[in-house]
Amino acid sequence: MELSHRGRTIQASPIRKLKPYADQALAKGIHIYFLNIGDPDIPTPQPILDAVRGYDEKILAYGPAQGFLELRQAIAQYFNSYKIPLNSENVIITCGGSEAILFAFCVVADPGDEIIIPEPFYTNYNGYASTSCINIVPLTLHAEDGYRLPPKGVIEAKITPKTRAIVLCSPNNPTGSVYTPEEMERVVALVRKHDLFLIGDEVYKEFIYDGGRHKSVLEFEEIKDNVIVVDSISKRFSCCGARIGAAISRNETVYQALLRFAQARLCPPTIEQKAALAAYKMGMGYFEPVRLEYQRRRDILYEGLSAIPGVVVHKPQGAFYMSVKLPIHDTERFAVWMLTDFEVNKETVMVAPGPGFYSTPGKGKDEIRIAYVLNEKDLKRAVEIFKAGLEKYKSTVEK
Amino acid sequence: MELSHRGRTIQASPIRKLKPYADQALAKGIHIYFLNIGDPDIPTPQPILDAVRGYDEKILAYGPAQGFLELRQAIAQYFNSYKIPLNSENVIITCGGSEAILFAFCVVADPGDEIIIPEPFYTNYNGYASTSCINIVPLTLHAEDGYRLPPKGVIEAKITPKTRAIVLCSPNNPTGSVYTPEEMERVVALVRKHDLFLIGDEVYKEFIYDGGRHKSVLEFEEIKDNVIVVDSISKRFSCCGARIGAAISRNETVYQALLRFAQARLCPPTIEQKAALAAYKMGMGYFEPVRLEYQRRRDILYEGLSAIPGVVVHKPQGAFYMSVKLPIHDTERFAVWMLTDFEVNKETVMVAPGPGFYSTPGKGKDEIRIAYVLNEKDLKRAVEIFKAGLEKYKSTVEK
Repeated sequence: MELSHRGRTIQASPIRKLKPYADQALAKGIHIYFLNIGDPDIPTPQPILDAVRGYDEKILAYGPAQGFLELRQAIAQYFNSYKIPLNSENVIITCGGSEAILFAFCVVADPGDEIIIPEPFYTNYNGYASTSCINIVPLTLHAEDGYRLPPKGVIEAKITPKTRAIVLCSPNNPTGSVYTPEEMERVVALVRKHDLFLIGDEVYKEFIYDGGRHKSVLEFEEIKDNVIVVDSISKRFSCCGARIGAAISRNETVYQALLRFAQARLCPPTIEQKAALAAYKMGMGYFEPVRLEYQRRRDILYEGLSAIPGVVVHKPQGAFYMSVKLPIHDTERFAVWMLTDFEVNKETVMVAPGPGFYSTPGKGKDEIRIAYVLNEKDLKRAVEIFKAGLEKYKSTVEK
Repeated sequence: MELSHRGRTIQASPIRKLKPYADQALAKGIHIYFLNIGDPDIPTPQPILDAVRGYDEKILAYGPAQGFLELRQAIAQYFNSYKIPLNSENVIITCGGSEAILFAFCVVADPGDEIIIPEPFYTNYNGYASTSCINIVPLTLHAEDGYRLPPKGVIEAKITPKTRAIVLCSPNNPTGSVYTPEEMERVVALVRKHDLFLIGDEVYKEFIYDGGRHKSVLEFEEIKDNVIVVDSISKRFSCCGARIGAAISRNETVYQALLRFAQARLCPPTIEQKAALAAYKMGMGYFEPVRLEYQRRRDILYEGLSAIPGVVVHKPQGAFYMSVKLPIHDTERFAVWMLTDFEVNKETVMVAPGPGFYSTPGKGKDEIRIAYVLNEKDLKRAVEIFKAGLEKYKSTVEK
């Protein structure tokens, strides 16, 4: 009675697997600045909380498999405000962006099929690749050039007869890079040439800095039938625990297939759909102050990390992450050591080691991901502690 | 750019696919008694609604991947009250029982592997079989003997080298049967002999009538490492829209694998976990009046249907469904006809056609599933209309 292959091989969350060490540190009375997980500290907007508290049905019943019409309309209108022509019949509400990823993988690929994803990538793609038994073909990016996409020929060399889709996550988790229209066109041309699907993970759409503009994969009309977008309110409205996302397609055949996967699990959470509707009703004015808050944090973090000798960091253009290359050999060991062997006045820092964001074995061992989900004061303090920790680790552990 | 095989072949919900016909009937001003879907009309318990309305966090954040400790403890205690030795570390909270089914399938089976399920069965097993690319091997039961399990030899004949698990849903959706300890022992012996997994779908655990007692697959100590239980609060506490279920295993290796699938999707909904905790805190006294209410409904429905000539119906022992064999050839056509061509004083009835509950092609064409989720008065009226409809359909359409 052995487990299935996928049951044995699906990865443990690299973000969460250091938690026991964090728990030990906390038990010793050490304060940890958590830079390891993208759980925003920005308060959830009041209209969301008010909608939850105002829930007034007598029976908490199933909703439609595709989600409530009003919410699908609101999401379509949100995209319309970016001049993207969507309507409610292009949107399926999912249990978090997570479920949208699973549905997208299943609709485009069968076991053994390949999906190309630039690495480092959002680590949970690995989990959904295991669930759906597809193979992720990594396209390795590099810290030195700020994780830009490679030339078209390098991308095309990854395409095989088994390739079904390319995933573009922009703004990117974990790098914070935002693909330029030109970078995206490289991919779009290949999607068109080889008749592939393009899965756009755009959950950080609102988090673009320095006046930049987000270009959605939905804006490429020439491949509109090939595009599936993964969306979520988790980061957009600081409500990760709501579990409301969306799978979006303008291809009716794809939409109907996504819907059949949705029907199998009945419906997304009823109450939080009402809450999400309240969030979208706030209008687009909500985002600017939040964006500026994250931008200030990014600047603090970038300035602080840039000043540390040997650290390779590019200023991210979006999301609330940075991938950072460190002058050490084993960032997983370093991340644990920071929790078990280091403190400054009973304080330390937790980061996410790089290897979990790669699928190529051995990659990312000198990288970490930092999420800037702390207020400015805490972030400044966290950078000081991080710097002291890195120096001590280098001079004592990896000396 | 063709869809994947699973994307093309995953079934549309047979329960929901008649909805357009229902919408047309509603648009014509016809009142429909919905007997087609198991969405309870019993009000959601006040403590659940109060917990939702009392949600007082400032940030609706991620919870643990396995769910909140307090809720896992409460679920373990609930099983403890049935003398089943569980603790919080045997329980993973899922997004509905649906997600627990997916995790269970993935942990035990790889693409092409087989899972044996008595049919008729809960139709969404088909959806999860498509998602996970496993093959359901049906073990056909029969209306004539009230859908009892066949002799051990008949079950064993279904086992091949590819068999990974047997699913037992008891109390059963769609038949309403509750397996006897002796029936279960037949399966347990085979699970032990062939070292298979046994997946127990026990979401209707509380709905057992006539003083009967539910026997859980968790009670068979000799196969405790082989058992995974799928659980849910949806029916137990009339809150299908909460999307809170659980996957339960006493096998540490299985538990850790389930947890890794859970980590990939981050966490179940935060608010409803608090609500579910409030529900379990009501204690076991909550269930008896609800059980008696459903039992009265079952009796009304059974009495009414038994009196219709040619209808084969056995008195169900649990859940809130009946599978009923009708003296006609095409229940799908009949179900549509009831919505499009039949009414009594502007009223009609909607039922679920049988074929969606079978995986063997051609089976179930003379069966329907009825969910008794209406109050007694409405149920009596619905039976009258159903009887009139069936007679008219027989004498005019299938004459």
